[in-house]
Amino acid sequence: MALLQWLNLMGEAVFAVSGVLAAGRKRLDLLGVLVIATVTAVGGGTLRDLLLDRHPIFWFGEGEHLVVIAGAAILTVIYVSFRRPPDRSLVVADALGMALFTIVGTQIALAEELPAVIAVIMGVITGVAGGVIRDVLTAEIPMILRQGHLYATAAITGSALYVVLVAAGVPGPVPVVVGMGAIVLLRFVSISFGMRLPSLVVTDSTPDEGER
Amino acid sequence: MALLQWLNLMGEAVFAVSGVLAAGRKRLDLLGVLVIATVTAVGGGTLRDLLLDRHPIFWFGEGEHLVVIAGAAILTVIYVSFRRPPDRSLVVADALGMALFTIVGTQIALAEELPAVIAVIMGVITGVAGGVIRDVLTAEIPMILRQGHLYATAAITGSALYVVLVAAGVPGPVPVVVGMGAIVLLRFVSISFGMRLPSLVVTDSTPDEGER
Amino acid sequence: MALLQWLNLMGEAVFAVSGVLAAGRKRLDLLGVLVIATVTAVGGGTLRDLLLDRHPIFWFGEGEHLVVIAGAAILTVIYVSFRRPPDRSLVVADALGMALFTIVGTQIALAEELPAVIAVIMGVITGVAGGVIRDVLTAEIPMILRQGHLYATAAITGSALYVVLVAAGVPGPVPVVVGMGAIVLLRFVSISFGMRLPSLVVTDSTPDEGER
Repeated sequence: MALLQWLNLMGEAVFAVSGVLAAGRKRLDLLGVLVIATVTAVGGGTLRDLLLDRHPIFWFGEGEHLVVIAGAAILTVIYVSFRRPPDRSLVVADALGMALFTIVGTQIALAEELPAVIAVIMGVITGVAGGVIRDVLTAEIPMILRQGHLYATAAITGSALYVVLVAAGVPGPVPVVVGMGAIVLLRFVSISFGMRLPSLVVTDSTPDEGER
Repeated sequence: MALLQWLNLMGEAVFAVSGVLAAGRKRLDLLGVLVIATVTAVGGGTLRDLLLDRHPIFWFGEGEHLVVIAGAAILTVIYVSFRRPPDRSLVVADALGMALFTIVGTQIALAEELPAVIAVIMGVITGVAGGVIRDVLTAEIPMILRQGHLYATAAITGSALYVVLVAAGVPGPVPVVVGMGAIVLLRFVSISFGMRLPSLVVTDSTPDEGER
Repeated sequence: MALLQWLNLMGEAVFAVSGVLAAGRKRLDLLGVLVIATVTAVGGGTLRDLLLDRHPIFWFGEGEHLVVIAGAAILTVIYVSFRRPPDRSLVVADALGMALFTIVGTQIALAEELPAVIAVIMGVITGVAGGVIRDVLTAEIPMILRQGHLYATAAITGSALYVVLVAAGVPGPVPVVVGMGAIVLLRFVSISFGMRLPSLVVTDSTPDEGER
């Protein structure tokens, strides 16, 4: 349980960083940046808790979540006020947060004795929802949608690996490390080398109703 | 109850098809397509269950939902890999799914002994939310918003007809058929012949704050 | 409690007005306008009730909410059919609704004995979520994001003032008036005079993956 909580806090920190970077591109004011960072960091876990009927929502009772999020956000604001963030820092922060939250979400769903396939779905929802909310609020195309790179695929693969290793009785933190590692690796390889799955291409000749 | 479940599965299948078509236009990879199809298919019912405090969410315990969704999505992927989808297939799939889910949602709300007007609202939410999520995730203008065709109007009319017929004691599947038929008919007539309600036009002379 | 309920109904009315104005700019048909008005008016409170596990959702059992929303929406439709709405009416309606709902949400969270900082967050969520949903559904950049004006900052300030005054034992409606007044004042001053907090500016030299 301790490991789970550390992973969760780390996920919140890196998602808060990604929220600050995304909001900074839109020149939000400082409290607006904090709001986006918080929503990004708690969004996935909040949706998971709602779906699993876990109340109170995880960040209500435990102050450390908001402390970690505010700390990570403020340090990021200070950093980017003095130096340009490293290249691709937003997608890297998003990839780390997505990997952490996907595994945490899968773990929690398994602990609720849900079937394996539901646990994978719950892991993916936990992993990607915060980033989707961040992208919708900052009026960006959701990262899960940007073409040409593995995103949902990475989350599903890592979560499924985790479930299989747990079911096989692999002990200790091994399933966590393998699951998260697979997600991060797939994302990074995909971003760096343009690796991708075949994509579906649908072409319509006729416009839909009302398209402007 | 059996009829309700069949309608629900049919709605999931056609919404999954609409999700594949929408995702395919954006050239998502294959697992990304599956994610969009699933979210579109279960989104409305999930929001309904959350609002009605029905736990576990309907697709957690029953494997057939995910089987139907994956099956419909995969068949659609195979189809569109070989042939161009028929004209307007996306709006037709959306119209069928919206009709099915609106009636299912209304029925469930009535079974929870909610007032008639709340049941209609819950039906509309169930019917349209999945499509809205699909359109937001694929960065399209939500179909409910595209100007010049009946959408919310069709859902409200069909749901209200269903409630009235049930209240009047009309037996068997008649209210279901009439309610769904009204929705599909209004959508299709509206799409084909451009039938529409008077629309509201608000013109502002002054730009809002911060509009870019 | 009576005061709380009046504030809530007033918030619903002005948010319904803002929904009609936003939908009218997109030339939705009349029932579509009603749907947007309703979702805007109940969105923030619904999300708050879901997060706090308050069931049934506040507008299920009490018919006055839908009556007020429909009334405000219909009067607005009639008004704008004959006259152009006053300048900035949308942002003014949004500011009033946001102020009302932020204080109501904070008050409800405090009544649930949540910590002060969580109560502020819950207030902000209640205050801004309806407007965010309205802006996403009408394909506008969320107002909370539009650069150069205080939005989240106004909500956080007013909610925190309210919490401090309540904790200090200030009696009667004073905390409500001060909290709401602060929000409305900050929004109006910001809109009229361009007052703003320093904003974060993040510049990246490298494009992200898949940006088109």
